Amino acid sequence: LLTMGTLESSHLGDFINIVFGLSSVAQVVLGRQNFGQHLSINLGFGIGVTLGIHAAGGISGAHLNAAITITHCILGNLPWTKLPAYVIGQFLGSFTAAATVFGLYYDALHEYTKGNFTVTGPTATASIFSTYPSPYMSLPGSFFTEFLATAMLLLGILIIHDEKNNGALKGTQALLTGILVLGIGLGMGMNTGYAINPSRDLPPRIFTAIAGWGTDVFTAGHHWWWVPLTAPTLGSLAGVFIHKIFIDFHNLPPPAMGRDTFTRSKYSI
Amino acid sequence: LLTMGTLESSHLGDFINIVFGLSSVAQVVLGRQNFGQHLSINLGFGIGVTLGIHAAGGISGAHLNAAITITHCILGNLPWTKLPAYVIGQFLGSFTAAATVFGLYYDALHEYTKGNFTVTGPTATASIFSTYPSPYMSLPGSFFTEFLATAMLLLGILIIHDEKNNGALKGTQALLTGILVLGIGLGMGMNTGYAINPSRDLPPRIFTAIAGWGTDVFTAGHHWWWVPLTAPTLGSLAGVFIHKIFIDFHNLPPPAMGRDTFTRSKYSI
Amino acid sequence: LLTMGTLESSHLGDFINIVFGLSSVAQVVLGRQNFGQHLSINLGFGIGVTLGIHAAGGISGAHLNAAITITHCILGNLPWTKLPAYVIGQFLGSFTAAATVFGLYYDALHEYTKGNFTVTGPTATASIFSTYPSPYMSLPGSFFTEFLATAMLLLGILIIHDEKNNGALKGTQALLTGILVLGIGLGMGMNTGYAINPSRDLPPRIFTAIAGWGTDVFTAGHHWWWVPLTAPTLGSLAGVFIHKIFIDFHNLPPPAMGRDTFTRSKYSI
Amino acid sequence: LLTMGTLESSHLGDFINIVFGLSSVAQVVLGRQNFGQHLSINLGFGIGVTLGIHAAGGISGAHLNAAITITHCILGNLPWTKLPAYVIGQFLGSFTAAATVFGLYYDALHEYTKGNFTVTGPTATASIFSTYPSPYMSLPGSFFTEFLATAMLLLGILIIHDEKNNGALKGTQALLTGILVLGIGLGMGMNTGYAINPSRDLPPRIFTAIAGWGTDVFTAGHHWWWVPLTAPTLGSLAGVFIHKIFIDFHNLPPPAMGRDTFTRSKYSI
Repeated sequence: LLTMGTLESSHLGDFINIVFGLSSVAQVVLGRQNFGQHLSINLGFGIGVTLGIHAAGGISGAHLNAAITITHCILGNLPWTKLPAYVIGQFLGSFTAAATVFGLYYDALHEYTKGNFTVTGPTATASIFSTYPSPYMSLPGSFFTEFLATAMLLLGILIIHDEKNNGALKGTQALLTGILVLGIGLGMGMNTGYAINPSRDLPPRIFTAIAGWGTDVFTAGHHWWWVPLTAPTLGSLAGVFIHKIFIDFHNLPPPAMGRDTFTRSKYSI
Repeated sequence: LLTMGTLESSHLGDFINIVFGLSSVAQVVLGRQNFGQHLSINLGFGIGVTLGIHAAGGISGAHLNAAITITHCILGNLPWTKLPAYVIGQFLGSFTAAATVFGLYYDALHEYTKGNFTVTGPTATASIFSTYPSPYMSLPGSFFTEFLATAMLLLGILIIHDEKNNGALKGTQALLTGILVLGIGLGMGMNTGYAINPSRDLPPRIFTAIAGWGTDVFTAGHHWWWVPLTAPTLGSLAGVFIHKIFIDFHNLPPPAMGRDTFTRSKYSI
Repeated sequence: LLTMGTLESSHLGDFINIVFGLSSVAQVVLGRQNFGQHLSINLGFGIGVTLGIHAAGGISGAHLNAAITITHCILGNLPWTKLPAYVIGQFLGSFTAAATVFGLYYDALHEYTKGNFTVTGPTATASIFSTYPSPYMSLPGSFFTEFLATAMLLLGILIIHDEKNNGALKGTQALLTGILVLGIGLGMGMNTGYAINPSRDLPPRIFTAIAGWGTDVFTAGHHWWWVPLTAPTLGSLAGVFIHKIFIDFHNLPPPAMGRDTFTRSKYSI
Repeated sequence: LLTMGTLESSHLGDFINIVFGLSSVAQVVLGRQNFGQHLSINLGFGIGVTLGIHAAGGISGAHLNAAITITHCILGNLPWTKLPAYVIGQFLGSFTAAATVFGLYYDALHEYTKGNFTVTGPTATASIFSTYPSPYMSLPGSFFTEFLATAMLLLGILIIHDEKNNGALKGTQALLTGILVLGIGLGMGMNTGYAINPSRDLPPRIFTAIAGWGTDVFTAGHHWWWVPLTAPTLGSLAGVFIHKIFIDFHNLPPPAMGRDTFTRSKYSI
């Protein structure tokens, strides 16, 4: 029963997260830029993350993103035995979300593609559901992009929630995390579509393989599919360790003598 | 007198909500994309909802959206005898709003249409006031779109206000609900114009029938007009039941043993 | 000295408000849409209002907008003897702001206009500083637009600050008021440029008359200049009275019996 | 050790700040406007500042912007002996950020420029990293732009944090400061790219000199490079003094008699 609760919580959170994200891509692509532009996609994923966090509760991101869940296991915050329930919940959530967005845009997909669902070409639509690297990208560059973007995601989540330092007001952290994801999309999204989350990428990819796009979804982009699983996980760990190092330096000087005497003083320009 | 208070509260809330929404559509359509693009419409409806909730008070959405009011009646939160006062208030509010936006853009409408108010064609303007499905849409697809978008609306409202789980900071929920509606417009708006609210759609449609667009507003889109009344009501109910199911699973494990020991623990990466 | 304090407070608030607003118009016009689009202007004025309220303090809008200051005098909230200090402060603030934005974009203005500052024509730039009606507008329509937009502004301000009903979280009201002004620009800005404030419009107009645009700034648009002084003042009064009427209806039923038993009940779908 | 803590705190804050900012410029430039428009850049820098403040903690801006740090030293809020640690931390942060964004867009840069990194011309890319004045700008005009924009930045920061007057809700000030920077970009960014911060501009410029753009980055724009160091510092001081003057006038009348009796009265239209 515990496991079911965990699974369902992650399921609902990622379902909401991914429905908002994927549907905004669909509207931009299938609407031929008349119903939104690239900014809409960045806003859609940001709003999805904010709502997903409100739905899933608890530690921001941990319930929505397998890379962050695994990081918690490695750090000892979460027993490894609980990992499968979280990840299965997330994967069910985003698979269901992909199916829902497919149903939502079933008519538009057929009108746009004439029934020919492809991964590449002028009416490619697979990128509505999962990420693909841009044509100019090398594999190491793509891997680094996902690694870096996820490291920035974790750094952002940690500072937004850092109550000892200068975190965001309690109850507004989900909003700030959405703004963080908006920022990642604005600046780190062009190379690879910013998966930054295995749970956001793999299940919709599997869905497209089944729903008519075929095995191209796994071979495209030099077999890109495994990168959004591994690079974000390493990036998540890197983000946590960078934060640890900088925070450890912070905490070395006693508050009465160090940097804090300046930063904690009454604001008095 | 009670009824008058209820009616007036819903009236003011939906008047504000719909004036902001419809006027932003008018500005984009009549301004030929020079005074805003599709994003402006999504922002306009989001801001309208935020302000409408601040005006109408109480349970977010219940005073602005007949589908949500009916859901409250079905769930026993509101006596059926009060339903008419709410719905009449909402309908008066959005009818008045449509008339106000018509007055606001009277000059621009005549300049844009040369006085020929039509539902379809290159200078169609009926969609400023009420929703119509896109040409590529089937009726089942359109029905499903409104059903799904309203289910997502309810899911969003419920998680934003869920103080037991991870809701938004009190006093910021109206803002978050506006952001939710922005997200629905970004991702679920292309197919049918996201009515997601009978009170937003029918009264402005009646207004256009009277004000010069004629009975086409009821026959267009395969007699589309009844779908924004029924699909959102079913979607609202579905959203509540999905939330109930997932929340019930959540609450099964006692807090000391279950998922909550993880999620409630001090944030400690 | 009291008067000086009042004057300076309004001066600083409107200086900030108008510098952000006018400079965003300048950037869109002089940048030929490459450095922002219409949405930028709407965002610029919204952010200006938020910052202006933080600067001027006290009752939102009262220190930034002569129409609202006059409304306070008529309602007996502010002695008429104090009106001049507020209005002079506001006018000095927005005049200084116009001069500042003129200085900021001096090089760009000359590059764009070849030194020929005009109110109309392909390189018209007077609308960077003050508002002009669109060519298709009639004078009654323009007057109604400013009347309505200001009435909506007041309605919005009053509901955002209504702590008895469902106002915004204290300390976030300036942000919400900026979002309100963003919404007005998105939906009610095309006809007349949404002056909605005599203090925002007349002093920059006087500045342009002096700085090289000549007396055309007063004759253009059928002598439009007096409308942003009168229509917002009447609209502000109308907004307050509409709010009073709807709020009075609200407060008639005693809380234990009326609408409030529903709206104040625990949120419990 | 104290110095290391200070240095690392500023390092992390500006690293985050500048990665979000520069990467959003890169995405717009290298993506040929298909992955964002000018607004994306304004949003990217705004989000970067918000996150940078959450990371660096303490007095907003002091840890991210050498102009503000120097202002604190001049005002006696910070000992001059601590200045080097702050500035070195900021410079390391933004240098590292420039290198990171260079790595992130290494493939895209080569595809866009065919390996020819230039400061001017049709495929100029130096402006991804540091600022350059627009071709139409005179040097005095450019200097004034950076001076004014930074003065507005400081005015904004001070009023957002002014708890005695009408500041923003505690815990939301980082968000408001990001919105302030968004507003500066919307209205004061076209002339010179709104450096408004020596720490944001010089280290990425040095990076580009090393990484392949050559010494042109220092000679371009009439040796523009020194202006983002000096003009923001003077502007920061000016902003503080303007605030002091207006606040001093405010505080002269005793609260019981002066302007405050109006502004502090219960909100009661």
